[in-house]
Amino acid sequence: MKTYYSEHFTIGENGHISLDGLDLVKVAEEFGTPAYVMSESHLRENCRAFTRAMRRNFGERCKVAYASKALCARFLYPILASEGIHADVVSGGELYTALKAEFDPKHLHFHGNNKTVAELEMAVDCGIGSIILDAMEEVDRLEAICAARDIHQRVLFRVKPGVHADTHAFISTGQNDSKFGFGIQDGEAMRMARHILEQEHLDFSGIHCHIGSQVFSLDGFARAAKIMFDFFCQIERELHITMDELIVGGGFGVKYMPEDEPGTFDEKIDTMGKVLREEAEKQGRVLPEIVIEPGRSMVCAAGCTLYTVGSVRDIRDGRCYVSVDGGMTDNPRFALYQANYDAVVANRAAAPRDKLQTIAGRCCESGDLVARDLQFQAAKAGDILCVFATGAYNFSMASNYNRVPRPPILLICDGVVREVVRRETYEDLIHNDL
Amino acid sequence: MKTYYSEHFTIGENGHISLDGLDLVKVAEEFGTPAYVMSESHLRENCRAFTRAMRRNFGERCKVAYASKALCARFLYPILASEGIHADVVSGGELYTALKAEFDPKHLHFHGNNKTVAELEMAVDCGIGSIILDAMEEVDRLEAICAARDIHQRVLFRVKPGVHADTHAFISTGQNDSKFGFGIQDGEAMRMARHILEQEHLDFSGIHCHIGSQVFSLDGFARAAKIMFDFFCQIERELHITMDELIVGGGFGVKYMPEDEPGTFDEKIDTMGKVLREEAEKQGRVLPEIVIEPGRSMVCAAGCTLYTVGSVRDIRDGRCYVSVDGGMTDNPRFALYQANYDAVVANRAAAPRDKLQTIAGRCCESGDLVARDLQFQAAKAGDILCVFATGAYNFSMASNYNRVPRPPILLICDGVVREVVRRETYEDLIHNDL
Repeated sequence: MKTYYSEHFTIGENGHISLDGLDLVKVAEEFGTPAYVMSESHLRENCRAFTRAMRRNFGERCKVAYASKALCARFLYPILASEGIHADVVSGGELYTALKAEFDPKHLHFHGNNKTVAELEMAVDCGIGSIILDAMEEVDRLEAICAARDIHQRVLFRVKPGVHADTHAFISTGQNDSKFGFGIQDGEAMRMARHILEQEHLDFSGIHCHIGSQVFSLDGFARAAKIMFDFFCQIERELHITMDELIVGGGFGVKYMPEDEPGTFDEKIDTMGKVLREEAEKQGRVLPEIVIEPGRSMVCAAGCTLYTVGSVRDIRDGRCYVSVDGGMTDNPRFALYQANYDAVVANRAAAPRDKLQTIAGRCCESGDLVARDLQFQAAKAGDILCVFATGAYNFSMASNYNRVPRPPILLICDGVVREVVRRETYEDLIHNDL
Repeated sequence: MKTYYSEHFTIGENGHISLDGLDLVKVAEEFGTPAYVMSESHLRENCRAFTRAMRRNFGERCKVAYASKALCARFLYPILASEGIHADVVSGGELYTALKAEFDPKHLHFHGNNKTVAELEMAVDCGIGSIILDAMEEVDRLEAICAARDIHQRVLFRVKPGVHADTHAFISTGQNDSKFGFGIQDGEAMRMARHILEQEHLDFSGIHCHIGSQVFSLDGFARAAKIMFDFFCQIERELHITMDELIVGGGFGVKYMPEDEPGTFDEKIDTMGKVLREEAEKQGRVLPEIVIEPGRSMVCAAGCTLYTVGSVRDIRDGRCYVSVDGGMTDNPRFALYQANYDAVVANRAAAPRDKLQTIAGRCCESGDLVARDLQFQAAKAGDILCVFATGAYNFSMASNYNRVPRPPILLICDGVVREVVRRETYEDLIHNDL
């Protein structure tokens, strides 16, 4: 059987593309377009691949925590829980979603450069596993909240390792001039550590970093992990404390385009593991619990988007624009980062990819593209397009720009497809309009 | 009384900034932050300024149609209607909103490069004023819909004047290599005109163009208007028909930053009017009805956003980041276009603007900024920030990224502030999660 993009997508004799054996042209007919479609088996494979690689390197002293911001909806949390995956949240809304899905709050930690008082209270009151502090002001706020309740809260804080990730500036977060984290070199991080330690109700348990998203190089992760572990040991020595958790973040790159070579999860984690174990030996101590936070790499490849082609415009001395019934409202990543996507005509997926076309969205904005100058089957009105690798930062970043309702998420599991997020209605759009 | 940004914002003796006489610090206390706040009187002034300028140039044969995509919510349409303003919509969702606000469908026209069949049916069935066709396929689709109902529909179509607007590439739409419109030079526009004319149920009434958004130069509008009118006359001559409407679009630039000099509505419309009247004289005919479509310029300056500062991070050899409780979720324009905004500390607006600061949002993304390197009052946790000129493309482009609920819109009218769009709740966020 011919596959495309991943082994989950197969092309049948009728030329239709299927996901986990389900004909996506039929899925589009049944549920309408645009629609996000996800493979539960691919999601679970990713959970297991990360867990396996982490266990191999760190034994039982490790955790895989899913970064909810990549895709946050109720259906996802029971799947994660059943695979032994923890999760991070970055807002009250993400926390609310995970709790409504009955995810164990002890398996959650809370990130963010500017958590509100209401969010900190919500997190403490639900018994969240830990809170990753990211501002001096937050330390005092959280201490006051915990003191008022006379309870102790496990906390870590965010450190800038000073490592530049080889990625888009907007999703590179480990450098010193960033709204996130405390610098090691300028002494701010040690100052923050001391400040936390002075609080009566905060249990200072470790540190966190995140160098950026969609990172391909092995080197960035390993360098950041080493710097973080060294600083971890330095805090313990200087402040005479023991900590037990080192969160090294996520950012594992994924394959969007056929030419992308992000490498395997295994090689990234093995490289990091090797560096950390060597460093532990040098320092003469065992490693703390090591935590990674894959978001994009957990869900991106497991999802695709189906669109219907409305019109095709072949401009003399210009591009050929294939207009679809979605676009930047369900996938703003071209508009935000000029990110390109791969696609096929779902109903003629076996045909030669013989025409250079640009997939345009339906919004009144020239930047509303899904793929620019992509070589694929010549499209015509009525065709179904399947755009790959839309599982991350599509639904989560979707908007109602032009008052376009957001698509449903359809989940394929054991040969059955079901709606796990309903399509928005026009009524939903004006629900809060008075 | 000291004013700032526009005469609607005044700074009182207590140093608080007010909008139309209402203390915005008190508004923030009462309604919480983040919140969009709008001035109804400023909105009405803009409606009247456009109407006056158009009447002065074109007498009764003109229309001002508000471009709904800039801000679409129910409260807006009764205000527009009472000022005699028409509107355009670009989706079923915008049409639904206008109809729910009991806006006269005859005063609406429907734009978009890829309207769905369901949207075309909805438009025809509600008795919409006109539909601006923007694809060959759409002509056949609409003809079939009208034939099935045995009714006639007034239509225009979108033309590319081939004028480059001096604006961001993503919002420049008049050039030939664009997903919008039909080119004059390559003969596509005339071919489209012939194709429409062949249809039995479509009343071909005119043409439309839109060169882009946030255009400052007078020249672009005037050039486009002249090209469009000449082509309008050419269609009439070659196809032996009479048309009655020429829509020259919107795109009138507005002032975001203190240094912006977008010019007045008056000078733009007068320049265009002069060119069109001269051209009409040359052609020996009267002008058709001239329609403009201001969106941003109608609502942008009438709105501001209030945020609460959560933390301030002053990085040695780096920026000073002022983190607020909103950001790219309620205003994605920095993330999308690196658009900068002006702001003041609302509770110390009279203090000197003496510190270079960057206003950062709360999302887990480095590109989540509201203003980069802006000189304003040194901010501290608990301060209220007022960011100006957020009335357009803020609410309409807002998302739930990081599952952050969207802010309310508060409207100030006659010294009273009321919520016209409710703040989203956590329950709203998971409403469609199954």
